[in-house]
Amino acid sequence: MKEVLDYLEQHKEQHLEELKNFLHIPSVSTDSNHKGDVKKAAEFVAGYLTDAGFDTVEVQETKGHPLVYAEWMNAGSDAPTVLFYGHYDVQPPDPLDEWVSEPFQPEIRDGRLYARGSSDDKGQVFMHLVVLKAFLKTTGSLPINVKVCVEGEEEIGSANLYDILHEQKDKFEADFAVISDSGMVAKDQPTILYGLKGFTGLEFTLKGPDNDLHSGMYGGAIKNPAMAMAQLLATMKDEEEVVQVKGFYDKVEPLADEERQLMKESPSEDYKESTGAKEIVSEKGYTAKEHTMARPTLEINGLFSGYQGEGTKTIIPATATAKLTCRLVPGQEPEEIQDLLVDHLEKHVPKGVELSITREPLSAKAYKVDPDHPLIKKAAESFEETFNKEAVYVRMGGSIPVVEWIDAIYKMPIVLLGFGTPEDRLHSPNESFPVEHFYKGMQTLVHYWNKVKK
Amino acid sequence: MKEVLDYLEQHKEQHLEELKNFLHIPSVSTDSNHKGDVKKAAEFVAGYLTDAGFDTVEVQETKGHPLVYAEWMNAGSDAPTVLFYGHYDVQPPDPLDEWVSEPFQPEIRDGRLYARGSSDDKGQVFMHLVVLKAFLKTTGSLPINVKVCVEGEEEIGSANLYDILHEQKDKFEADFAVISDSGMVAKDQPTILYGLKGFTGLEFTLKGPDNDLHSGMYGGAIKNPAMAMAQLLATMKDEEEVVQVKGFYDKVEPLADEERQLMKESPSEDYKESTGAKEIVSEKGYTAKEHTMARPTLEINGLFSGYQGEGTKTIIPATATAKLTCRLVPGQEPEEIQDLLVDHLEKHVPKGVELSITREPLSAKAYKVDPDHPLIKKAAESFEETFNKEAVYVRMGGSIPVVEWIDAIYKMPIVLLGFGTPEDRLHSPNESFPVEHFYKGMQTLVHYWNKVKK
Repeated sequence: MKEVLDYLEQHKEQHLEELKNFLHIPSVSTDSNHKGDVKKAAEFVAGYLTDAGFDTVEVQETKGHPLVYAEWMNAGSDAPTVLFYGHYDVQPPDPLDEWVSEPFQPEIRDGRLYARGSSDDKGQVFMHLVVLKAFLKTTGSLPINVKVCVEGEEEIGSANLYDILHEQKDKFEADFAVISDSGMVAKDQPTILYGLKGFTGLEFTLKGPDNDLHSGMYGGAIKNPAMAMAQLLATMKDEEEVVQVKGFYDKVEPLADEERQLMKESPSEDYKESTGAKEIVSEKGYTAKEHTMARPTLEINGLFSGYQGEGTKTIIPATATAKLTCRLVPGQEPEEIQDLLVDHLEKHVPKGVELSITREPLSAKAYKVDPDHPLIKKAAESFEETFNKEAVYVRMGGSIPVVEWIDAIYKMPIVLLGFGTPEDRLHSPNESFPVEHFYKGMQTLVHYWNKVKK
Repeated sequence: MKEVLDYLEQHKEQHLEELKNFLHIPSVSTDSNHKGDVKKAAEFVAGYLTDAGFDTVEVQETKGHPLVYAEWMNAGSDAPTVLFYGHYDVQPPDPLDEWVSEPFQPEIRDGRLYARGSSDDKGQVFMHLVVLKAFLKTTGSLPINVKVCVEGEEEIGSANLYDILHEQKDKFEADFAVISDSGMVAKDQPTILYGLKGFTGLEFTLKGPDNDLHSGMYGGAIKNPAMAMAQLLATMKDEEEVVQVKGFYDKVEPLADEERQLMKESPSEDYKESTGAKEIVSEKGYTAKEHTMARPTLEINGLFSGYQGEGTKTIIPATATAKLTCRLVPGQEPEEIQDLLVDHLEKHVPKGVELSITREPLSAKAYKVDPDHPLIKKAAESFEETFNKEAVYVRMGGSIPVVEWIDAIYKMPIVLLGFGTPEDRLHSPNESFPVEHFYKGMQTLVHYWNKVKK
């Protein structure tokens, strides 16, 4: 292992220059003008793996942007096989004028590498490529069998990935998966992300009269759809932030004392400071941190009815519409929760308005891995040995669709090895990544591959 | 009186042609391209009154469009003086392509005169002009003293009228006022409109975080402003349509049994049929008709928060805004009710959001005249003698600012003599007025001026 770490140390500058070349390619997947660039980034990944010594390297065409698949299966049938997932496409850089340096002209300032994709996810993908190459160049082999899957459509919803994973199950089959597309709770703070929330949602409209009505002529005889909406929404959550939809919490796995302890020990975000909200709220019986990380939520994402211009328009609106999504935790089935929401709305819709519902077609189950799982423990140890600091264990309120898909299709454990920091400004101008995390992240990966071999 | 009625009968066709000439002038007050036309319409009114034999006729300039003032004060100091108010400006005719005949090319079809302004309000103003002329041409005098005030800014909020009435109080002073800018509950159904609602309102915003937030990262720690809005609005009205704002009903004059009987006897609108609402609602203890005509209401006119586009955007919105107006009844002071609304909001605002309120600057007190007042009884008799049908007594949920102003400044009784019908399509394409109401309305006015003389 020492020779691999030495190799990384000796080639530090070279690897940073190679990363800059990778980041220089504007692989913006949502912009058809960049179709050629997206392909160029795929070829960069494929070329790097070929140079590294991978047996099989494919740039697999899809209906959209290509997926890079590669494998090195010479660790022996006793050794485990890992599926590494990442993405080489990036978000658009707009608004351009807010960037201090050009988004695709990587530049280091104050120890951070500024460029679109430096953290999400080209920087983190590249760390894996370098580590795999370092093993092969120095030891001639990898500690375990490796399958690589780097897609080019993550930032546009991974439109083709589910079908590929589903239809080519044998190809991507492995013992566990590693994904590096997330972050640590703070710079230099080893972080084990062991749970993500799922989600489901719907949009619904309450219709009153056929058209907006004169509030003087009809006010008093017609149910106001905006008021009906307020009354209906108010039945869904109480003032202590407890969701009132019948059955909503029924299948929620209770939060074990050990987990609550883990969360308590994890660094706390100052929510007031970071959001500007005047006061922090939380579900009765749970801290705000527990609620965001590990308890299900119901949020109104959009709400509209009637006149929105300046001044007054004395109408009774014809309709009112709300968009709702729920973040789900292990135990909750998205479709079942969606059914419960529909039942609740149908049961509580006020007299005088007609309810119509559009179910959100996308949904995801929550994902959680046992924080005591050996693959997780080894990840924590790898982090700790490199960063010289005890790892914290967190769950996250967000969802990563590919995690849900790999879980659903392959039922394999998924290890989320993220090296980003809260300051990275993903999807925003001036995205960056700490240069130090680039080196320490690669060292962590060297430790990890060594630990997970049988 | 017979000679006046005969004169009207003999000059029927001539008067209709004159009305068409008046309607032919596109006096659209909101459109500066029509400034000259608006003035032309003012001059038409002034010219007609001069021809009729009025002593004083003025086209009084304002900061906007001119006001026509005229008086004939030769009925003697024993005779009462009436202030007649009307307006010669009209709404824009858009959308033009929905008109069957041109909006400013008056055309009679199926007994109705189609033209912008035929009902609101040039047609009704013209009936007054003709009747005054008929009296003067046939009898050489009028039964009472008459002051005429016909403005050109009603459709743009009567921007200058309040100041004029207030500053030139002596000029417009009278014993009572007559306004013909409203309608009957059905064609050929004599209608006494003896009450209008007042109104007040406000807009308020609930602010949570400084920006829209990721619902996964922050859902659970941050109060959702849209949910706070729903919870707050839901405290304002219960499910039986009773306003829950403390003190809201305290000063409402109770609805006398006689009034309820009057309303019961008035023709009922089929609200389901006319609005398309699935079900009719009403304040507990009152019929929908009583509620719209004579009980105060609180309506949400607009409501908005967060994402309104297609599909899903998983955010916690930064703010939520609602626009509210109340329709008020006699006893309620607009400013006091606005204060009560503010108090209610401040008291009930949920934890975690900040409330900011913009008070609606315009407000109006409700107006009601005693339905047994002799001036009202005489109006009912005049209607009944002409239409050969008993009059019905109604109150209306709408507000007419000039009524409130005349009431506030002069404290004189106001008689609303409206001849429109529910089918007139005011402010819409294909506005029209029944030709028969033009003749019968003028006969009603002849009866009325005769009855109100001392």
